[in-house]
Amino acid sequence: MNFFFNPEGIAVIGASDNQRKGGFHLFRNTLHSYKGKVYPVNPRVDSILDVPCYPDISSVPGDFDLALFFIPAPGLPSTIEECAKKGVKGIIIESAGFAETGRDGVRLQEECVSLAKSHGIRLWGPNCMGLLDAHLGHVFSFMYTDVWKTLMKPGNVSMTVQSGMLSAGFLMMVLERGGLSISKMCSIGNKCDVNETELLEYFINDPSTDVIGHYAESISAPRRFIELASGTDKPIVLLKGGRSPMGAKAAMSHTASMASDHAILRSAMRQAGIVEVTDMNELMDFLRGFSKTTHCSVHDNAGTAVVTFSGGGGIVTTDLLHESGLSMAELSNETLSVLKSVFPPWMEPANPVDIWPAIEHSGMAKVYTTVSNALMYDEGVDSVIIHIYTNLTTDSTVLLDLARLKDELGKPVVAWLAGMGEPLRSWRRGLESIGIPVFDEMSRSVSVLSAIKRHQRKRGGVQCRR
Amino acid sequence: MNFFFNPEGIAVIGASDNQRKGGFHLFRNTLHSYKGKVYPVNPRVDSILDVPCYPDISSVPGDFDLALFFIPAPGLPSTIEECAKKGVKGIIIESAGFAETGRDGVRLQEECVSLAKSHGIRLWGPNCMGLLDAHLGHVFSFMYTDVWKTLMKPGNVSMTVQSGMLSAGFLMMVLERGGLSISKMCSIGNKCDVNETELLEYFINDPSTDVIGHYAESISAPRRFIELASGTDKPIVLLKGGRSPMGAKAAMSHTASMASDHAILRSAMRQAGIVEVTDMNELMDFLRGFSKTTHCSVHDNAGTAVVTFSGGGGIVTTDLLHESGLSMAELSNETLSVLKSVFPPWMEPANPVDIWPAIEHSGMAKVYTTVSNALMYDEGVDSVIIHIYTNLTTDSTVLLDLARLKDELGKPVVAWLAGMGEPLRSWRRGLESIGIPVFDEMSRSVSVLSAIKRHQRKRGGVQCRR
Repeated sequence: MNFFFNPEGIAVIGASDNQRKGGFHLFRNTLHSYKGKVYPVNPRVDSILDVPCYPDISSVPGDFDLALFFIPAPGLPSTIEECAKKGVKGIIIESAGFAETGRDGVRLQEECVSLAKSHGIRLWGPNCMGLLDAHLGHVFSFMYTDVWKTLMKPGNVSMTVQSGMLSAGFLMMVLERGGLSISKMCSIGNKCDVNETELLEYFINDPSTDVIGHYAESISAPRRFIELASGTDKPIVLLKGGRSPMGAKAAMSHTASMASDHAILRSAMRQAGIVEVTDMNELMDFLRGFSKTTHCSVHDNAGTAVVTFSGGGGIVTTDLLHESGLSMAELSNETLSVLKSVFPPWMEPANPVDIWPAIEHSGMAKVYTTVSNALMYDEGVDSVIIHIYTNLTTDSTVLLDLARLKDELGKPVVAWLAGMGEPLRSWRRGLESIGIPVFDEMSRSVSVLSAIKRHQRKRGGVQCRR
Repeated sequence: MNFFFNPEGIAVIGASDNQRKGGFHLFRNTLHSYKGKVYPVNPRVDSILDVPCYPDISSVPGDFDLALFFIPAPGLPSTIEECAKKGVKGIIIESAGFAETGRDGVRLQEECVSLAKSHGIRLWGPNCMGLLDAHLGHVFSFMYTDVWKTLMKPGNVSMTVQSGMLSAGFLMMVLERGGLSISKMCSIGNKCDVNETELLEYFINDPSTDVIGHYAESISAPRRFIELASGTDKPIVLLKGGRSPMGAKAAMSHTASMASDHAILRSAMRQAGIVEVTDMNELMDFLRGFSKTTHCSVHDNAGTAVVTFSGGGGIVTTDLLHESGLSMAELSNETLSVLKSVFPPWMEPANPVDIWPAIEHSGMAKVYTTVSNALMYDEGVDSVIIHIYTNLTTDSTVLLDLARLKDELGKPVVAWLAGMGEPLRSWRRGLESIGIPVFDEMSRSVSVLSAIKRHQRKRGGVQCRR
């Protein structure tokens, strides 16, 4: 499998010099991201971006492990034959026109799979956007934008997706917002050969992956998928497309995915610790949350402390925690008396901890430091949700103690922000950079924390890698 | 009640010249927003912002309908007495220190209510942030920011809230994002006299209110509240704080709200058509969605059409629609053949309508116009969810036909955007300005549409105001 992510030499079959075509972007992205040799193949062009172009595969002078295929579907069988002669190990088929188009396409796709197998060549796709590997800096995708050059930073989240959008435009949008960094993003389309289950195993064994996400319109080998999930301490988040009859019908013409009755798998998946979500932002939010809380520890008989600047916000979050089955921390008398030292005399501290009056009374820096230490060292507290009004100060270093203690003590901290303009963006960046994930909705901060805590309990005694 | 929103003369009891105090901001906001006479009252100051200050209420030279109270709680009884002598009609008590602080506070609050009643004075609050009236431009609140001067535009949504944040910082954040415009925002705190039920009736009769929202930690007169809701064609969205035991306990010390068992009221509320939500962003998103779809019409045996640029996005939305109990539109043969005229030959149109290949084949403007007309005139379509990738074009006028037809035919349209930077913001502004509400998550676009359609069915024959 490594030759897909880190090949020795790449040929781009169907590279184009027309900037309005995917074949141009596929070649350009590969050329700009990959340090080895890249050979464009196209009989109608002499050179692309000053790189000499070859009329066919047999004319390519050097060897290459990987071919990126971007010509019309009927050209695939002969391409496989030619690639076999060159000793190619894998082909990423980014063109559409296979099983998703109906009976003829199914036949063509099946024929190609057999042919490739007979030559020992692995196929990726078809009908997909290839892969990104942020650690190696590789972008083997025809996405039209090159914002990946600035946005793609190596991280610990790997994904398989059956959606071009999720691996291109939407991914860039999420990366631009900040806080999520990926390791490998694999767009697998019709997944005629390499599938999400094989990649799940690859991610589980991949030292640069801590958290695994999937958008799948079908699961190719569900028993193995569940078995793998049961045996790993890496969190796995799944968005299953085609749960409904109409959705399943649409999945058939999208990636030729025969959506089985997902309801049957659901409870086995849950037992295996797979976290199921239903929306794309939700998928990314959960992955971001998990990616910042890979330390695991279970604190028995403890609950969540809510730190807020708004009585109403504290109450709404408390209700949401309750409805997610999470308990509120009972603060110790010692914690309460420490809190009292920064609170105004007329106010009794309690959980949710409304610190607005304390800030007016004792000043922001003192309050945040005192509250962070008191809560994090309280044995009744296993996690903290913090609300911040960003337009009071832009100095997120007031939370450095909280960020340090969350790692030292293995207690997750998640944040919700209210505010606007640059202060809001600056706080978001600041918190994400110290490992506190920020969510737009209180309910999302609660549902992510709930999933993190369930995962911690599942892993129980297992020692997690950091 | 009008004298609270549009008084003749205002005194600010506890106006301050110290910019770090709420009494300064309360006076300044009032002075800058209200066209009539504003009298600051404070024995320790000569003038504030060049307005002469009076040592006590009896020294105020002119008459005033409304007093804004911002001195410590024990000063309220004598203030009521003094106000009575001046013929004051109402007092907005923005100070805290009443029933929310315990037994003594309860006694003080009750004493003040009786005293005010005996003089025919209405009380608003205490422990609140007053009110905003965007049509009159009035800001009778001590909020520290004056961004309301640019952000507050008259709209059709009125709210009562028991949360300072919701009526100040968070509200400004929502207004800055755009798309939501308010009519009246009423922060009622402990609501010792004026409460959400009385204001609900006021909003129902208010011609500048089309949509009503509440954040309530208790409902003061639940039967009347439900009765009013049943009898109006204006949508009502409720976020109830203190649904959980710990949340209810926190509500007690926040606004002294004795949260009754909300579960008992829930089904009666639903029957009365009240839409219940559980988070603050969700509350604002629902109000924004309703505020743009005040036209109502029921289309029997029809469903939702999904227009997308992503096969995966279409499938995820289809699943979400199914799980919300909404049906997908079955497109007529006529619609399908019109769609086919802009689709590439190899692709069969279906719902969800994936228009990316069509855009590559026929161009953006032609595709949007053709698709908008075909879908909106299809009798099987009662609503549209549209996904837009904002970084292809920033010209949101391609959707003008869609925007016009949604009003003409009474079919709601909601949008989900993917993209980044200025194009994303520009599309958001563009769509909101032509009456298409934009949501950050596909699931929110679906849940809002679902609520809109339920409301349309509830109102059935009722002719709605636009």
